[in-house]
Amino acid sequence: MANYKAVLAYDGTAYHGFQVQKNSLTIQEVLEKCLERLYGQKIRVVAAGRTDRGVHARGQVINFNAPPNIPAQKIPYALNNLLPADIVVRDAEQVEDGFHALRDARVKCYSYTIDNGTFPDVFLRNYAWHLPKKLDVNAMRKGAFFLLGKHDFKAFQAAGSSVGNTVRQIFSVRILEEDNYIRFVFEGDGFLYKMVRNMVGTLVEVGLGKRRAEEILEILKGGDRRYAGFTAPAKGLCLEKVLY
Amino acid sequence: MANYKAVLAYDGTAYHGFQVQKNSLTIQEVLEKCLERLYGQKIRVVAAGRTDRGVHARGQVINFNAPPNIPAQKIPYALNNLLPADIVVRDAEQVEDGFHALRDARVKCYSYTIDNGTFPDVFLRNYAWHLPKKLDVNAMRKGAFFLLGKHDFKAFQAAGSSVGNTVRQIFSVRILEEDNYIRFVFEGDGFLYKMVRNMVGTLVEVGLGKRRAEEILEILKGGDRRYAGFTAPAKGLCLEKVLY
Repeated sequence: MANYKAVLAYDGTAYHGFQVQKNSLTIQEVLEKCLERLYGQKIRVVAAGRTDRGVHARGQVINFNAPPNIPAQKIPYALNNLLPADIVVRDAEQVEDGFHALRDARVKCYSYTIDNGTFPDVFLRNYAWHLPKKLDVNAMRKGAFFLLGKHDFKAFQAAGSSVGNTVRQIFSVRILEEDNYIRFVFEGDGFLYKMVRNMVGTLVEVGLGKRRAEEILEILKGGDRRYAGFTAPAKGLCLEKVLY
Repeated sequence: MANYKAVLAYDGTAYHGFQVQKNSLTIQEVLEKCLERLYGQKIRVVAAGRTDRGVHARGQVINFNAPPNIPAQKIPYALNNLLPADIVVRDAEQVEDGFHALRDARVKCYSYTIDNGTFPDVFLRNYAWHLPKKLDVNAMRKGAFFLLGKHDFKAFQAAGSSVGNTVRQIFSVRILEEDNYIRFVFEGDGFLYKMVRNMVGTLVEVGLGKRRAEEILEILKGGDRRYAGFTAPAKGLCLEKVLY
């Protein structure tokens, strides 16, 4: 058996997230079925980020162990022939046996897109959160500044989560204005469950003037989910890339 | 009754084109049903371009006669509340009684997008033609030059069409390279049935080296559909705007 790393893009609209669940269609299930058809045996996939229901990816990374009979550069073509049109394998390479897409990830990059136009962009209706309200982008940038660095992000994880270590490091937050869109780009060593969407929801409250930027610092210190803002809708979120 | 002009965007993926047809869902049918709900009476819509099955619009223009009880600037909000998410009214204004969205159109602008990447962009799978082959963009630009101006475009209309006058004027053709995408932008006083898709298909044959650019001139002169190239897929086409 050889270990393969592959890069995926997918439209998460039709899926209940990445990870296999009972009675719900997931990206992992579809992938593993196609891998089984390709290799004639069950293949288990490990992903860098367990994207949630309705969340998209341009650069999800997976690894899997499979027989070495298909050259790595042929794997994307072979899998794309079997996969539905909303999941695309962009790249594959053979990697050392010990490589693990989740454990070895050093940097994850997520984008979050707000459609700030008066009326929704019909072509982004599944890929952006339509919020037709005036947002103070500089206030949001000021708020985002407090998220940078190593912090306990417990207040920004989904209520009821039970991860042991809630300390994460955020390397950069960029907030870009492009036409009617506002794009948040987060880079960090990892993100807790719903953490990006909770940070975006909280920053949007700053942008709407409902909170001061400095409250972000207080929320981090408080460590209580109830202090943070609401969870931005899943459809605006996209896992852009993962570095190793 | 007052005459209203409105600008629409839609994702044509789920529709059998704009114009009402028996036993097939069309944009016009959905629009007219929503207008009937809004005004409590049948309202008939006239469109600038009868986009085909699977073709999209960012700037389709329609007009309709309706009671003057709803202020024009409220119409987009009222209609968008009733319309499905893949049709969006972007603007509405009251116009003089004689205005006719089809007859009065002076310039129509269509774009056609080719996804030239090795693997398809999952987010453009319904909005671009995935063609992972090397295209000579300068040869296509040379070919497009012959399309400029006033010509009989009979050779580029769908086989079996029976329009009286097949002379049209093309004001500009731009071919833009953006990352992995090649975008054609056509401006003209009007386009025959499937004319844009037939021009794109023929230019792509030039880009692939299967035809010389000069053949475009010969095809125009010949006036026979069989000389022109194939019809590019509907999903890459978008009605961008209409000028009056």
